[in-house]
Amino acid sequence: MTTTLTPGPAAIRPVVAPARYGERLARAREGLAEHAAAGLLLGAGADLRYLTGYDAMSSERLVMLVLGQTGQAALVVPRLEAMSAAACPAAVAGFVNVIPWDETDDVALVVAGRLAAATNEAPGSGRLLVSSTLWALHVLRLQAALPGRAFGLATEVLRALRIRKDAEEIALLRLAAHAADRVVARIAAGRLVGRTEADVAREVRDRLVEAGHDAAAFAVVGSGPNSASPHHSASDRVIGPGDPIVLDIGGTMDGYYSDITRTLWVTGGDPAMAPDPAFLKIFDLTQRAQAAATAAVRPGIACERLDEVARTVIAEGGHGPEFIHRLGHGIGLEGHEEPYLVAGNGEALKPGMAFSIEPGIYLAGRYGARIEDIVICGVGGPEVLNEASRDLWVVSG
Amino acid sequence: MTTTLTPGPAAIRPVVAPARYGERLARAREGLAEHAAAGLLLGAGADLRYLTGYDAMSSERLVMLVLGQTGQAALVVPRLEAMSAAACPAAVAGFVNVIPWDETDDVALVVAGRLAAATNEAPGSGRLLVSSTLWALHVLRLQAALPGRAFGLATEVLRALRIRKDAEEIALLRLAAHAADRVVARIAAGRLVGRTEADVAREVRDRLVEAGHDAAAFAVVGSGPNSASPHHSASDRVIGPGDPIVLDIGGTMDGYYSDITRTLWVTGGDPAMAPDPAFLKIFDLTQRAQAAATAAVRPGIACERLDEVARTVIAEGGHGPEFIHRLGHGIGLEGHEEPYLVAGNGEALKPGMAFSIEPGIYLAGRYGARIEDIVICGVGGPEVLNEASRDLWVVSG
Repeated sequence: MTTTLTPGPAAIRPVVAPARYGERLARAREGLAEHAAAGLLLGAGADLRYLTGYDAMSSERLVMLVLGQTGQAALVVPRLEAMSAAACPAAVAGFVNVIPWDETDDVALVVAGRLAAATNEAPGSGRLLVSSTLWALHVLRLQAALPGRAFGLATEVLRALRIRKDAEEIALLRLAAHAADRVVARIAAGRLVGRTEADVAREVRDRLVEAGHDAAAFAVVGSGPNSASPHHSASDRVIGPGDPIVLDIGGTMDGYYSDITRTLWVTGGDPAMAPDPAFLKIFDLTQRAQAAATAAVRPGIACERLDEVARTVIAEGGHGPEFIHRLGHGIGLEGHEEPYLVAGNGEALKPGMAFSIEPGIYLAGRYGARIEDIVICGVGGPEVLNEASRDLWVVSG
Repeated sequence: MTTTLTPGPAAIRPVVAPARYGERLARAREGLAEHAAAGLLLGAGADLRYLTGYDAMSSERLVMLVLGQTGQAALVVPRLEAMSAAACPAAVAGFVNVIPWDETDDVALVVAGRLAAATNEAPGSGRLLVSSTLWALHVLRLQAALPGRAFGLATEVLRALRIRKDAEEIALLRLAAHAADRVVARIAAGRLVGRTEADVAREVRDRLVEAGHDAAAFAVVGSGPNSASPHHSASDRVIGPGDPIVLDIGGTMDGYYSDITRTLWVTGGDPAMAPDPAFLKIFDLTQRAQAAATAAVRPGIACERLDEVARTVIAEGGHGPEFIHRLGHGIGLEGHEEPYLVAGNGEALKPGMAFSIEPGIYLAGRYGARIEDIVICGVGGPEVLNEASRDLWVVSG
């Protein structure tokens, strides 16, 4: 790499004030009461980070926030992570007690004991809500240690908190989006012909960090026929003139994701290798579908309606069956979270919701196109975070 | 970065022959019969990759291998990942059928239907074993879609297959270990004084890929008092003369992990900043404990006995309470897997088992030391994969 990207303006990254974690924990307790659930059991992941600021690792060693409607919140952690856990904002502020467990302890019993203390209830009563990404290893052990208890997903309570982003969250999503924009531009301006998808993906990951992300999260580089596989990763296929490339990339900033897709066409500098009319047609449909769905964003519109707006444009263009996935997904501390823009989801948008809008058309064995932005539902309509051109990037490569 | 590492010898990476997946699937079916279980339900993760070669993404969209004692194996995948799934070795070889599901399908019902077909059994009977890292989201939905069924962990069946590594697996672990060795040497030779832990961690991640890993997995850089936190990640603390650094790093090659820890001491070129006697004492104990446990590796010895060997050395040196974690963990397609070298685990080592040996001593608020190698239990004793010096790396930094 001979040129570098402007780094993200790290100095102006917003910080979540410690008191905010106290508010979030209080709201979670209220949610437990509203949903008639006894407790939250949150493993490593986005729910835990949202409520405590603790960025824990998922592993065979259980990390678990035990939160009841009343009583003290306990953060049960392996002893070797106790120092890290004690440094998280919610622990420093005294909102949670860090409870270390030792390698030879039965941690499910430790959690069960803390739960009894946290909920002040008779043993054996009350529904328990676990984080959606908790490993089966832990779920089954907790079910065995807490026999007869009904288990549900913490999303039931936490969705109401997490689905609408506050000012700091939106600022982080915006910073991350702009960083990803710069990476798209840099990749499009660089050499592509003669390189493998995997090599380009590696550059993408480097550039995502260089542009200001804390870490790269994913780098889909689908060239030629691989562009017809929406979740293609990156293979040893060598990119050549006449190839489209679906570039779908993202990283994280303080845990908040970027996620952008742009479609490129590589000519190798040869005008004869320009995109063919069939490709231009599917690209144009994709672009119009993406624009139409974005324009339809406003408080009150149903998630499924946005999907339908995009799908109608593509279906009327004759490619309905080749738009093989939902329109989009929520985004925040998880790359995919609620709300999902999918048929059957009648949930109405509210201000502060953040989600992708990413229609695509995939002609199996041939090629595909997709365009994706991250969009916030604003009070008056859409606020599009990404700024990179949504046109087809026809590049020499 | 001005110098580069020798890249890993990618050309000689061993390839798992497609027929091997057929053998593994057959052995898994036998294991189901032996354990009186009806079926395996494997989500994205190491179990799935081991049996099919498919490196799927964990997400809210379920990917699931449905395998019964008899009948056809089904790989249920979201339609947008069908092309990727169909390209995995087990699908190409015809050992599994790829079954796409659509965004509006209830995938738990799709799995339940395939299970009935795969097991040829009366509905409602037979224990089901899920992969240990399957998300709670999917576990609870499967439990609801398959009421009355007992659920257990697939580890029960797959541990016997995965715990002993074959020649290709050992070769990959060795290549990965050597790549990590080179990164340790490169970091120790570079500038450290005046840099943050996070900045060094970023370099580690770059170097892991440069050295031949497909991806960096983790980079613990614990300097000064942070070296006393075994799972410290990497903070904004600036490294200075007189700091120890516990460097615990790893990446993956074709899914197989490296994992090495070395302890450095940074002098800044000032002899007055050399390690103090108390540190040298805990380092020496750590080193002797690590060597003694490694030397004790042989078929038949119990996992807990290795832990005890190391713990005894450290306890006799007066630091028993400060060795606050187990001795080690198995390694392969997961960074932590069976066997665990921990008190209470009486399992006897067998040839081909692969694991870390990583004692440490942590003086809270002051500093800590750890040394970690990946070791194979060979027929005649230990085969240590890492080659980097296990001495204290006293560097100018």
